[in-house]
Amino acid sequence: MRILTTELATHAGERVSLAGWVHARRDLGSVSFLVLRDRAGLAQIVLDEASELAPEAVVEVEGEAVASPQAPGGVEVREPTFTVLSAPAEPPPVELRRPVLKETLRTQLDFAPVALRHPRRRAAFELAAASLHGFRAALDDLGFTEITTSKLVETATESGANVFGIDYFGRRAYLAQSPQFFKQIMVGVFERVYTTGPVFRAEPHDTARHLAEYTSLDAELGFIRDHFDVLPVVRAVVAGMVEAIQDRAAAAVELLEVELPEVPGEIPWLHFTDTGVDDVDLAPADERRLCEEHGELIFVTGFPMAKRPFYSHPEPDRREYTNSFDLLFRGLEIVTGGQRLHRFDDYVAALRGDTAPYDGYLQAFKYGMPPHGGFALGLERWVARLVGAANIRETTLFPRDLHRLSP
Amino acid sequence: MRILTTELATHAGERVSLAGWVHARRDLGSVSFLVLRDRAGLAQIVLDEASELAPEAVVEVEGEAVASPQAPGGVEVREPTFTVLSAPAEPPPVELRRPVLKETLRTQLDFAPVALRHPRRRAAFELAAASLHGFRAALDDLGFTEITTSKLVETATESGANVFGIDYFGRRAYLAQSPQFFKQIMVGVFERVYTTGPVFRAEPHDTARHLAEYTSLDAELGFIRDHFDVLPVVRAVVAGMVEAIQDRAAAAVELLEVELPEVPGEIPWLHFTDTGVDDVDLAPADERRLCEEHGELIFVTGFPMAKRPFYSHPEPDRREYTNSFDLLFRGLEIVTGGQRLHRFDDYVAALRGDTAPYDGYLQAFKYGMPPHGGFALGLERWVARLVGAANIRETTLFPRDLHRLSP
Repeated sequence: MRILTTELATHAGERVSLAGWVHARRDLGSVSFLVLRDRAGLAQIVLDEASELAPEAVVEVEGEAVASPQAPGGVEVREPTFTVLSAPAEPPPVELRRPVLKETLRTQLDFAPVALRHPRRRAAFELAAASLHGFRAALDDLGFTEITTSKLVETATESGANVFGIDYFGRRAYLAQSPQFFKQIMVGVFERVYTTGPVFRAEPHDTARHLAEYTSLDAELGFIRDHFDVLPVVRAVVAGMVEAIQDRAAAAVELLEVELPEVPGEIPWLHFTDTGVDDVDLAPADERRLCEEHGELIFVTGFPMAKRPFYSHPEPDRREYTNSFDLLFRGLEIVTGGQRLHRFDDYVAALRGDTAPYDGYLQAFKYGMPPHGGFALGLERWVARLVGAANIRETTLFPRDLHRLSP
Repeated sequence: MRILTTELATHAGERVSLAGWVHARRDLGSVSFLVLRDRAGLAQIVLDEASELAPEAVVEVEGEAVASPQAPGGVEVREPTFTVLSAPAEPPPVELRRPVLKETLRTQLDFAPVALRHPRRRAAFELAAASLHGFRAALDDLGFTEITTSKLVETATESGANVFGIDYFGRRAYLAQSPQFFKQIMVGVFERVYTTGPVFRAEPHDTARHLAEYTSLDAELGFIRDHFDVLPVVRAVVAGMVEAIQDRAAAAVELLEVELPEVPGEIPWLHFTDTGVDDVDLAPADERRLCEEHGELIFVTGFPMAKRPFYSHPEPDRREYTNSFDLLFRGLEIVTGGQRLHRFDDYVAALRGDTAPYDGYLQAFKYGMPPHGGFALGLERWVARLVGAANIRETTLFPRDLHRLSP
């Protein structure tokens, strides 16, 4: 019966069976060690003789679990017998045995199937998995229903630019830039909905914070007064993600020395006009400065209409501003949201009468829709801020950009 | 403080506040009723005078909760005052007040944003949401890690046909037909992974069981002996989905009179050569017959290589058959899976040396991969069998097919 490397500590004195990859070998002259990696961690195995086992060979190991203060976890395996399940065809192009990979990010991405095996690389994706769980758990608690939405759409959702075209049975279709239209439609059905999945942006710029595809965590809720009723839901989601990380990814937190944010009962906010920004949107430098001035979690509300999508609800008294918000986390926008228009006539006006491309979507508003709003959180950006990654590609399993479409 | 319609029963004798949509009106001469619909259910409101409120108007209602044996739930609202939050621009094209919609499926799909508001239509998607939860919970319990995978790929995954092409920054890319390559790669990282999300098939046929996009629930695990180690995981997932439906969607089960399957401790299986099928794959009629003969949940194993993808692991002693399986549920294949090849050389042979399009994927096998296998479950098909839907479009929020790309 196989045990995991992290279970070794409770089996001292027993014969044990482990399985995993040959992570590293160490020859100390008189004695040799092999480090075995499995999904849970690493284990030290004392070799009787020099081993022929190549790095990344997949093996089963049987041996004696013996207390040994110098071993990681305090227990090592002695007198091992190995069964090789799979031998690598050639030496890996990434040196996984090092505590921190020394290869460039580009090499790590070129060889992602191997580089992701490194404990530090994969730990970031344990944070992502826990975050997904926390997002859903927080919204389940608030009466939200999960939905799945189509990624093939007739009309660009966010704007005419940055959209991927598809040949759809001989006609033109697009990849959804967000689930925005669908989640609004579904507020008419379930009042409170969420969805997690890929969104697509034909982003022609090469930056450290944009990709052609990322994972968007979306929520939308009806029967709000305005966007200030959405902020507590964002707060609940962020707190839920932090809690899930503590519960489910403690080892990754420790390995990466992640400092989780203290999420206050109410995340503070300030209006766009009080940010000192002279433009219609925040620049990256503004985002950094605002977090320095106001803390690691800060809402900016009331963005100018000029830079928000057509479905944004204006401020009642200043229609050049919107009932919208961004959440900044450690100097980066990770959430964007707001109140949406909910009256059919307001959509007709916002679209200047050119409603034909939006007919399907507009049904929701034509037939009775409550005031509603919602938000989207970029999963990879959130994790990037948690681990302090300089480039979003470090926290994306298989990044897609101007130059990269594989693996 | 707003309460939900389903909470009315515990508030008899109190002043209450509700919110929702005008679902139906009934004039019985001396007295008139309005039925209010919210995300939880329906409530009866006694009107003092004939109401001007149009179907699908969004309202807040305050009134007296009064015990009334004839009212649904035993409590109705009297002496109401209404606040209209949003009035429909025109009468809905679907008559939501009927116990069962009388419009054709085509009309229901054309007007999905309204038709989905019907209690019976939306109930199917409550089953879907609960199933997603059950799928993840079952796999979390078994030590699986959730991943998100790219939908933009360089190479068709399942076969050269039925794939959507994209213009990707001036070069050719495709929409992933499955997360197969990614989940196998990630077995090398986490050993046990799952992912839920859209998959894309440029399905040129108009059938009741195929769509161009559907939600695939995928799992993959390493360190198996063969495909028989995957079957218990499929069983755990199906049992987990049934349990989650019971826990989280009991009202939908009752409304739709769903008979949930009894999932046996071990789901029975039979080999393809014992099915009496004379071809290399099961036809729909075979699937129905096998369930009639063997029960509502039955695995068929050992499909001929001729109809399985190149990464399928052959039977060790009969290489024209594969270590694969389908799960049939009530006459329809809802899961397909199997053991995969795990040795690099076997991939080179299976691809007849033409490995270049698969270079990124093949890294996983080049650098050490354990024996592994997995499966995919079609969410909409599963729900369709649960509710007895004749057409997969009834259990798909926004179906995409040869003719339909909106809403």
